[in-house]
Amino acid sequence: MHTLHDVAAREFGSDNYSGVHPEIMTAIVAANEGHVPGYGDDPYTEHLAEVVTTHFGEGARAFPVFNGTGANVIALQTLLPRWGSVITAETAHINVDEGGAPEQRGIKIHTVPAPDGKLTPELIDLQAWGWDDEHRSQPLAVSITQSTELGTLYTPDEVRAIADHVHGLGMRLHMDGSRIANAAAALDVPLRAFTRDAGVDVLSLGGTKNGALAAEAVVVFDDADAKVLPYIRKGSMQLASKMRFVSAQLIALYGDDLWLRNARHANAMAARLRAGIEHGLADGAIRGVAFTQPTQANGVFATLPEGVADRLRTRFRFYDWDATIGEVRWLCTFDTTEDDVDAFLAAIAEETTRA
Amino acid sequence: MHTLHDVAAREFGSDNYSGVHPEIMTAIVAANEGHVPGYGDDPYTEHLAEVVTTHFGEGARAFPVFNGTGANVIALQTLLPRWGSVITAETAHINVDEGGAPEQRGIKIHTVPAPDGKLTPELIDLQAWGWDDEHRSQPLAVSITQSTELGTLYTPDEVRAIADHVHGLGMRLHMDGSRIANAAAALDVPLRAFTRDAGVDVLSLGGTKNGALAAEAVVVFDDADAKVLPYIRKGSMQLASKMRFVSAQLIALYGDDLWLRNARHANAMAARLRAGIEHGLADGAIRGVAFTQPTQANGVFATLPEGVADRLRTRFRFYDWDATIGEVRWLCTFDTTEDDVDAFLAAIAEETTRA
Amino acid sequence: MHTLHDVAAREFGSDNYSGVHPEIMTAIVAANEGHVPGYGDDPYTEHLAEVVTTHFGEGARAFPVFNGTGANVIALQTLLPRWGSVITAETAHINVDEGGAPEQRGIKIHTVPAPDGKLTPELIDLQAWGWDDEHRSQPLAVSITQSTELGTLYTPDEVRAIADHVHGLGMRLHMDGSRIANAAAALDVPLRAFTRDAGVDVLSLGGTKNGALAAEAVVVFDDADAKVLPYIRKGSMQLASKMRFVSAQLIALYGDDLWLRNARHANAMAARLRAGIEHGLADGAIRGVAFTQPTQANGVFATLPEGVADRLRTRFRFYDWDATIGEVRWLCTFDTTEDDVDAFLAAIAEETTRA
Amino acid sequence: MHTLHDVAAREFGSDNYSGVHPEIMTAIVAANEGHVPGYGDDPYTEHLAEVVTTHFGEGARAFPVFNGTGANVIALQTLLPRWGSVITAETAHINVDEGGAPEQRGIKIHTVPAPDGKLTPELIDLQAWGWDDEHRSQPLAVSITQSTELGTLYTPDEVRAIADHVHGLGMRLHMDGSRIANAAAALDVPLRAFTRDAGVDVLSLGGTKNGALAAEAVVVFDDADAKVLPYIRKGSMQLASKMRFVSAQLIALYGDDLWLRNARHANAMAARLRAGIEHGLADGAIRGVAFTQPTQANGVFATLPEGVADRLRTRFRFYDWDATIGEVRWLCTFDTTEDDVDAFLAAIAEETTRA
Repeated sequence: MHTLHDVAAREFGSDNYSGVHPEIMTAIVAANEGHVPGYGDDPYTEHLAEVVTTHFGEGARAFPVFNGTGANVIALQTLLPRWGSVITAETAHINVDEGGAPEQRGIKIHTVPAPDGKLTPELIDLQAWGWDDEHRSQPLAVSITQSTELGTLYTPDEVRAIADHVHGLGMRLHMDGSRIANAAAALDVPLRAFTRDAGVDVLSLGGTKNGALAAEAVVVFDDADAKVLPYIRKGSMQLASKMRFVSAQLIALYGDDLWLRNARHANAMAARLRAGIEHGLADGAIRGVAFTQPTQANGVFATLPEGVADRLRTRFRFYDWDATIGEVRWLCTFDTTEDDVDAFLAAIAEETTRA
Repeated sequence: MHTLHDVAAREFGSDNYSGVHPEIMTAIVAANEGHVPGYGDDPYTEHLAEVVTTHFGEGARAFPVFNGTGANVIALQTLLPRWGSVITAETAHINVDEGGAPEQRGIKIHTVPAPDGKLTPELIDLQAWGWDDEHRSQPLAVSITQSTELGTLYTPDEVRAIADHVHGLGMRLHMDGSRIANAAAALDVPLRAFTRDAGVDVLSLGGTKNGALAAEAVVVFDDADAKVLPYIRKGSMQLASKMRFVSAQLIALYGDDLWLRNARHANAMAARLRAGIEHGLADGAIRGVAFTQPTQANGVFATLPEGVADRLRTRFRFYDWDATIGEVRWLCTFDTTEDDVDAFLAAIAEETTRA
Repeated sequence: MHTLHDVAAREFGSDNYSGVHPEIMTAIVAANEGHVPGYGDDPYTEHLAEVVTTHFGEGARAFPVFNGTGANVIALQTLLPRWGSVITAETAHINVDEGGAPEQRGIKIHTVPAPDGKLTPELIDLQAWGWDDEHRSQPLAVSITQSTELGTLYTPDEVRAIADHVHGLGMRLHMDGSRIANAAAALDVPLRAFTRDAGVDVLSLGGTKNGALAAEAVVVFDDADAKVLPYIRKGSMQLASKMRFVSAQLIALYGDDLWLRNARHANAMAARLRAGIEHGLADGAIRGVAFTQPTQANGVFATLPEGVADRLRTRFRFYDWDATIGEVRWLCTFDTTEDDVDAFLAAIAEETTRA
Repeated sequence: MHTLHDVAAREFGSDNYSGVHPEIMTAIVAANEGHVPGYGDDPYTEHLAEVVTTHFGEGARAFPVFNGTGANVIALQTLLPRWGSVITAETAHINVDEGGAPEQRGIKIHTVPAPDGKLTPELIDLQAWGWDDEHRSQPLAVSITQSTELGTLYTPDEVRAIADHVHGLGMRLHMDGSRIANAAAALDVPLRAFTRDAGVDVLSLGGTKNGALAAEAVVVFDDADAKVLPYIRKGSMQLASKMRFVSAQLIALYGDDLWLRNARHANAMAARLRAGIEHGLADGAIRGVAFTQPTQANGVFATLPEGVADRLRTRFRFYDWDATIGEVRWLCTFDTTEDDVDAFLAAIAEETTRA
C-alpha cells in the first residue's frame, strides 16, 4: 500500500492539484440518496437549471460535462458547422493544451499572437477574413479565455467590443471560462456582466479549478444551441450517466456564493504573493525577480535568476511557463493559505539572495 | 428549491440510476486530502495500477476515464488505424447507445444479428472479409460485450474461441465490460479468466454501473497500446484533471471484493425476480409473462400482456426493450433489495391477473 | 513497356471499366483552349449551370466533383449536422463500397435489409426513430440509389412516397444517382421527374459510369445548401483546380441527349442479354441459370450452376455479387455491343450445357 | 450559349489556370481504348509504377490521386496516427489553402513563421517538443514544400539537414511537391536528389500545375506505407474509378522529360520577368517595384506602388499575396510565352511611370 499522505502540502503548480472544497464534497455525499434517472433527467440537474438562470438570466441553459476539454470542444462544435474554424490566441488552452481534441473533431484553429493572452478586435482581424474563399477554412467563431492563461482579465467593455466586432463579421463568440470565477471576483461584477450581457454566445463554465471534483458546464443562451447541444455532448463522450453528482457540484459552487468566496481567496493569495515579492524587491530581501504579466486573477508570472526556479522547485511545486526566457507560473487556489504564501516568499527570498 | 427526495425508490430501470456505493463514497471523501498532481501522476492512480495487476497480471495497464462511452471509443481507437472498422452485434452498446460517437471518430461499425446478444466465430464471419479490397472499410477489430446488453454471458471458452478466430484473421478483440463484474460473479471465475487469459486485447472495465460515481478504465495488456493510449484519451476529452478521485473509486471497487459483492447481489436479485415470476406462472398468480432471454447476470427480459407494462410503470420505473414485440428490460443493481423485488413481483401478479 | 492492348475487349464487369465516350473526349480536348480561372470560376462551369437548370429547373445548382464517393459523401455532409446519421439499404454503395468514407467524416449509417435494393417508408421506419434520445445517433437523412445496386428502379411515385415520408419525419432525402441516366432511360421520364419533382433534396448526379472520364456533380435545389456546399467540397478534397475539364464532361453528357443515348443503349444491351438467356432457357440451349432480380436498368443478376462462373470468367470479366449463393452481376455499358452480348450468350450456352 | 473564348489569354495568376499540355492531352486520348479494369488494376497504372521507379528507385510506389489537396491530406494521414500532428510553415498550402481539410481528418497543424517559406531545423524546433506530454498534440511529422509557396527552393543539402533533424526526433518528413518539377529544373538535379535521397518519407508528386488535367500522386518509399495507402486513399475519396486516365497523364509527364521541359520553361519565363523588371528599374523604365523574395522557380513576388496592382489587373490576371503590404504574386507556367512576359513588362512600365 502506498502512503498517500506524503504529498507536497505546499505548491503553486496548478489549480487542478487542489482537492475538492468541503462544501462541494458534502453536496456530492448528500446527492447520494436513492435512485434517480440518469443522464440529466434528475432533480439535481433540474435545480441546476434554476441556479444558472439566477446568474445568467432566463433562457440560459447549462449542460454539465466532465472536464474543461469537453466543455470547450463541445462549445466549439455548437458554434461551428463542419466547415467552420475558430480564431483564438496562440496561448489559448484550446490551442496548446487540449491534445488536438478540437482538430480531432474537425475544427481548425487560427491563432494570433497575444502577448498578454488577450484578443482584441485588431488581433482578431489578423485571421478574420476569407469568408468568400472556399480555400480558406471559414473562421466562424472566436474564442477568448476569461481569466486568460496568463492571469489577465477582459473588462466587460473589452468583451463587448470583441463581441460586437465578432458579430458584425458574422461570427460567434465563445468564452473559455474555466477560471471565470476568478475573473468575476477580480472585476467585482456579476458573471453575466462579461458573458451574456457582453455578447458571449457560448460559455464554458468552470468548476473543477475552483474546488469541484470534476464538473464544468457548457452554457448557452440561444434555444437553437440548446436544442442541438445534447447530441453534441453525447457524441463527444461527455454525457454523465449519474449526472446528478456533476450537477450537485455545480449547485454547491454556484447555488450560493462559494464560487465567489473561493475565487476571491485564490486571487487574494496571488495578490499577497505578488505584493510580498514587490516588497522584497524594494527592500532587497528578494533579488532579480521580474514580473512578466500583471497579476489580475490567481496567477503570478515572473522570470527568475538562473538556477532559482530549480532550487525553489525542490521545496514547492510549480511549472515553467516559457522556459526559453526563464518564465515561471505560480497559481493560487481556493485552499492556498497565507502561510503557504509566506513560506514561499521566504523561500524566494532565500533562493534569490544566496551568495 | 426542489424536493430532491420524492424520487422512485423502487425501480428496475437502469444500473445507472442507483447512486454510489457507500464504500466508494467513503473512498472519494478520503482521497480529498491535500494537493496531489493532476492527470494521473498521483498516488491513487499509482495504487490503482497495482490493483489492476492483481486482477489481470503483470503488464496490464489501466487508464481511468469518466464514462463507458469514453472507455469504449478510446478502446476502439487504440485497436484501429484510421482505416479500420469494427465488427459487433447489432444490439451492442457501441452501435445503438453511443450517439454515433465511434463514427464521429471515423470508425465504421459492421453489425451482425445476434439474437441473444452474443457473437460467435460464425457470426463474425458474416462481416469478416474484404481485407484485400480497398472499397471495403477494413474490419480490423471485433467488439463483444460481457455480460451482454441482453443479460447473457460468454463462457471463458466462448471468448477464447472468438479471440482465436479473430486473431487468426489478423484482427484484434475488444471487450465492453461495463457489466464485467456481473459476468465474473455469474461465471464464478476471476476477471482475467475471460479477458486477458481468453485473448481479449483491450478491455473497457466498468465501474459506474456497479456502484461507482463516474469511473471506468481502459485496460490494455500490450506495451504498444499502453504507450499510445494517453494521447488517445486526451484527444478524446477523457483525461480527468483531478484523476485521483476517479482512481479512488476504482480502487474501492476492485481493491478488495466490493466489485464482486455488488455484482453477486445484483445477479441474485435478478434471479429472485425471475424465480418469483416463474413460480407465479406455475401457480397462476402471474399470467402471460414470457421470458425472451435467459437470466444469467443482472437483467430479466420478458414480454408482457398488452397494457401491463404501462400500468406497472406507474409504480416502478423500467424500460421497453423492443416495443414492437412488447419486450421489457428489468435490471437489478447493487442496491436493489429483496423487498424491492418482492414488491415488484406482487405488482406483476396484480397487473397480470386483473379482470 | 507494357502492351496496353491485350485487355479483355468483352466484359460485363463494371460500368467503370469502359473508357470515355468519344463525344465527351472531344469536349475535353475542346476545353483545352487558353487560360481560364480555376476552381469553377470559368465559362464551362458557368455553362454547366445552365445545362443543369434545363434538367432540374431554376434554382438547381450543380457542384462538379471527381468521383462518386466524393459526390455521395459531400451530399451527406450537406444534409447532416455533426450529430446526424443516414438511413439506407444494407446494399447501398455508401454502406458497402466507400471504404468507410462517410464514417470518416463522422456520419453513422443506419442500415435496413432491402432484398431488391429499394427502400420503402416501412423499411425506413425500422431505423427512423429516436429523435428525442441523445443516446441514438440522430437519423436526419435517408439515402436511396437510383437505379439501385441491384439494377432495380424506383418509380417517381415511389420516390415521392419516400420523400413525403422522410420529410414528414423531419429528415431529408439524398439520391445516389451514379446510374441516374439508366433509371431515367428505363422509366422514360425526365431526370427531374424522380428527383427534384419527387422531393429529393440533394442528388449525386452521375457521369463517370455513363461515359465520362471522371465527372460527377452534387446537385442541390435549396439556396442554403448551395451556399455551404463549396466549403464542404473543398474540405472533402474534391475541388478541381482545372474544373473546366470536369464541367466540360458534364456539359457533353447532359448538354444534349448523350446521357440518354448512352443509358438507353446500356439498358438495351442488358435487356438483350436477359432475353437471350430466357430464350435459351426456354429452348434448352442454356441450362440452370436463374435470375435473382428483375432487369430494369443496365444490370443482370443471376445464379449459375456450380463451376460455370469460373469457366465463363476465363473468357469474359464479371464479378460475383453474393458468392454465398452463387450470384453474379453482369453490367452493360454505353459501349457494350450486340456482338459482345451475343458472344456472351453463346459462351453461357456452352458453359451451362457442357456434359 | 456562352462564348467560351473571351478569356484572358495573358495572365500570371496561377499555374492552375493554364490548360493541359498537348502531349498530355494526346496521352489521355490514347488511353481511351477498350475496357480495362478500374481503380488502378490497369496497364497504364502498372506502367506508371515503372516510370516512378526510374525517378525514385526500386521500392518507390506511386498512388495516383485527383488533386493536390488529396495528395497532401492522404500523405499526412499515412505519416500520422490519430493523435499525431504536423509542423509546417505558416505559409504552407496545407495550412492556408486546403480549406481545413487536414483538420477535418483530425490532423492538427503546428505552424512556424518562415519569411521565405522555408523551414529549417531551428524553425522546426519551435514546435518540435512535448512528446512526453499528452496535453500537447503530438508533432510526429514535418511538412515542407518544394518549391515553396514563395517561389523559393530547398537545396538537397537543406532537405537532408531537415530530414536528419526530423528523423532524429522520431518524426517523419513529408514534401508537398505540387511544384516539384520547377524545383528540380531550377536545381538541375534529379527528382530523387532532394526527395528520397535526401530523406523525404512521403512525397506529394505534382502534375496538374505542370500541365496535367487533374493528376497528382502520393509517392512512398516504405512497404509499410504502401500497404496502408490504398485504404487511406479510398477513405479520403481520392480513388479514381477510371484510373488509367490519371496514370496516363503522369506517364506522359514523367515518362520522358516533359515534366522537365515544362518546368524549365516556366522557370525561364519567371526569370525573364524578373530580369526585365530589374532592367527597367535600372534604366528608369519601371519605377517603385521591389522584390520580396528571390525568384528561384516559377514565381515572382514583389510590392508595387499604390494603385498599380489594380490598374495592371484590368489587363492581366494575378493575385495579391499579402495585401497588407501591397505584395503581389506573378506565376509563370509551361505555356507562358515570351510575348506574354514582354507585354506584361511593358504594362508594368506604363503603369508604374504614369504621371
